[in-house]
Amino acid sequence: MNKSTIKKVNFPISSKCLDEILIRYEIDLDTISIRELNRLVDKLSVEYSIKFLRFEFGVPGINSSPIGPSEEIKVIKNNIKISSTYPPFDGLQRLKKATSDFLEKYINIQVPSSSCIPTVGAMHGGFICQAICGRRILGAKTILYLDPGFPVNKLQAKFLGLEVESIDLYDYRGIALINKMESCFIEKNIGGVIWSSPNNPSWVCLKEAELEGIGKLLTKYDVIGIEDSAYLGMDYRTDYSEPGKPPYIPTIANYTKNYFIIISSSKIFSYAGQRIAVTIISPDLMNKRYENLKKYFDTDKVGHAFIHGGIYPTTAGVAQTAQHALAALFEAASIGEYNFLDDVKIYRDRAKEVKSIFKNNDFKLVYDQDMGDPISDGFYFTITKTGYKSSEILFHMLRHGMAGIPLNTTGSNREGIRICVSNVSVKDYGILSDRLNILNSYLNQL
Amino acid sequence: MNKSTIKKVNFPISSKCLDEILIRYEIDLDTISIRELNRLVDKLSVEYSIKFLRFEFGVPGINSSPIGPSEEIKVIKNNIKISSTYPPFDGLQRLKKATSDFLEKYINIQVPSSSCIPTVGAMHGGFICQAICGRRILGAKTILYLDPGFPVNKLQAKFLGLEVESIDLYDYRGIALINKMESCFIEKNIGGVIWSSPNNPSWVCLKEAELEGIGKLLTKYDVIGIEDSAYLGMDYRTDYSEPGKPPYIPTIANYTKNYFIIISSSKIFSYAGQRIAVTIISPDLMNKRYENLKKYFDTDKVGHAFIHGGIYPTTAGVAQTAQHALAALFEAASIGEYNFLDDVKIYRDRAKEVKSIFKNNDFKLVYDQDMGDPISDGFYFTITKTGYKSSEILFHMLRHGMAGIPLNTTGSNREGIRICVSNVSVKDYGILSDRLNILNSYLNQL
Repeated sequence: MNKSTIKKVNFPISSKCLDEILIRYEIDLDTISIRELNRLVDKLSVEYSIKFLRFEFGVPGINSSPIGPSEEIKVIKNNIKISSTYPPFDGLQRLKKATSDFLEKYINIQVPSSSCIPTVGAMHGGFICQAICGRRILGAKTILYLDPGFPVNKLQAKFLGLEVESIDLYDYRGIALINKMESCFIEKNIGGVIWSSPNNPSWVCLKEAELEGIGKLLTKYDVIGIEDSAYLGMDYRTDYSEPGKPPYIPTIANYTKNYFIIISSSKIFSYAGQRIAVTIISPDLMNKRYENLKKYFDTDKVGHAFIHGGIYPTTAGVAQTAQHALAALFEAASIGEYNFLDDVKIYRDRAKEVKSIFKNNDFKLVYDQDMGDPISDGFYFTITKTGYKSSEILFHMLRHGMAGIPLNTTGSNREGIRICVSNVSVKDYGILSDRLNILNSYLNQL
Repeated sequence: MNKSTIKKVNFPISSKCLDEILIRYEIDLDTISIRELNRLVDKLSVEYSIKFLRFEFGVPGINSSPIGPSEEIKVIKNNIKISSTYPPFDGLQRLKKATSDFLEKYINIQVPSSSCIPTVGAMHGGFICQAICGRRILGAKTILYLDPGFPVNKLQAKFLGLEVESIDLYDYRGIALINKMESCFIEKNIGGVIWSSPNNPSWVCLKEAELEGIGKLLTKYDVIGIEDSAYLGMDYRTDYSEPGKPPYIPTIANYTKNYFIIISSSKIFSYAGQRIAVTIISPDLMNKRYENLKKYFDTDKVGHAFIHGGIYPTTAGVAQTAQHALAALFEAASIGEYNFLDDVKIYRDRAKEVKSIFKNNDFKLVYDQDMGDPISDGFYFTITKTGYKSSEILFHMLRHGMAGIPLNTTGSNREGIRICVSNVSVKDYGILSDRLNILNSYLNQL
């Protein structure tokens, strides 16, 4: 029997066969993690000789600009000490300055270099931010998540021994969101709030009025906001791509002094491989003191706790050359030589196309509205099939050579699947259409 | 008044002036941290136009071999995807394999690649190791330190909310050490033991019999040993530099299955700048399960907790090019093309010289004996002055343009100063001799 025959016989994978495979690998689609799903899809691809459409990966789908790699080569060649010298815990002055300039040009806020701290990817920043937020005040060890969200942030809270609460952005937007948040803050157990805008996976973007409301609450209740800007400026309904000119990218920094902002290089600069990001600590927060921090960080001052109590004992700084790469990217973007938002705009075009193929096959968007406007097109969107649970939709997608993340694992209380478009290309559109068509016909026959 | 006049007038710095400066900067020499000391010395150097002899830095004093930097350049040039692709959480296969080979050649143990996990410097490895050790078993949240040691390891325990106990190697060696450790283990509150051999700062090296005794205890009481091999093979009394040939570098792995080994690139390869190290998880420990881990790592399995519950939520992996650099260094060392121990032997020669200058000026070694043998010459040694406290010795050293770390900050219960020789060179020997001579005469007049 040759390969193509196997393929024809076995594809789509029968429900019986997939059930058996899931039992064999002890996998429960209701609780599957991204990595388990990755491994399952790898195995199915081999076993059934099928190239899956892998919507489950949330990874850059394009190459990074040559600016970063060239810079790394340059600094290695020009500075013989770069590999032997410990980086400063609070980061290289060049990157700190470049971050400060970039913030001014793209989000129109003024923060000194000293407030910009490089971290080993945004993960590292989010880890330390949550550690500080949840350990400032005795009794306020809960992190509030504006969900759906990136599941690993909750794993970080778990590592840190913190508690977790969640508000689903499907249920609360605008004034309802602010009121709901205030009802949480009143309990005095919330140390920090974390969100991403655009949101992973719904691509919901918080409105200025919402940021304003959140900012006021953060100040009023002395809670810290963690703005995870993983997809900074990637709401393409507004063009934020011109440095130093309005419109500027919205930020909580305009509405409170109680903030951390995390800027990752992974998505906006497609620079995931060298693990480099920056956390911006509000200049006021930097010098704020909380007695309870001492127990964990040997200091009561937030900025010192972040750097000497956070960066130092976890990684003792960030790889030197990666810091130069990110500095060069920020510098090129700030002077308008590198239009990073234009580079990643391709995700918008893919989302538009892929979304319409799903819709043409009786799938619906879960998070379809952004306070009255249709949701923006970007890195992710969310689909569902009326009458089916997340795990059931995933089950049938897998049978038909497609994978995505069940929404329940993202903290959403809705049934559906996260679709990441970073790895699809034009040539996949026809295949997707065919597979969804077969899947749809199958479900309609049931 | 010109600069040289200032210098002549003010040097040595008078006790009164230094006292005033310490008050001005709110610095207490009894509790000073390494970084505070660094800043103080920076300031004194400028204020008094004096080039200090900086024995306080524990940083590589030589350039790294070109092997690492060349490899980073090569992989950046050859692989356009390297900067845009997330590294696997458990590390690049190449580095994992190279580590496994290196271990076989230099310490004569067989571990599979899967047991070798890259981390963002040894700091990152020590952080996750302690997290696992102290969270395995409810009630066993204490980390036992064989002191003196690297102060930041205790800051890590603090970050993790763990407890700390200490045994001073000055007071307990050989069977006394084993007995003392057993008396701690019997209490059932110890989750892990951490040590470095050669030890920072005493340069004490654990004997085979001690490792054997410790190994038996670790197995008997199900405690995990964390062998921090920051100075792997740098006990120059034995030549470990030929790969694949005895003598091999001593290790706890020969005496128990309950171990983590942390190999840092910072000192042995002078590769501190790119933050890269490897933790080796004993293959048996890798698959061991502890129910209490679930609460923090979402899994009860040690290996999975380390990678998916430890590496993932802290940094999501290690910079790609740094992993290739370390792989290349391990590879070159394993085939005998790169004699790394020969490169760093220079620290031995410096230690020998600097030690004798201190001794000639009535200083004594604190940790002078290594179970009957004189202590080995290496990266660090410890000095004291009879009748003076650590902070007093440091005070007078600072007055005379020298800096070192007070031993009390390293967990030692002895009075004295850690001297790191990495940054002194031949031309400093005369200056050191002169300054110690003046210092000594001053103290003798008191």
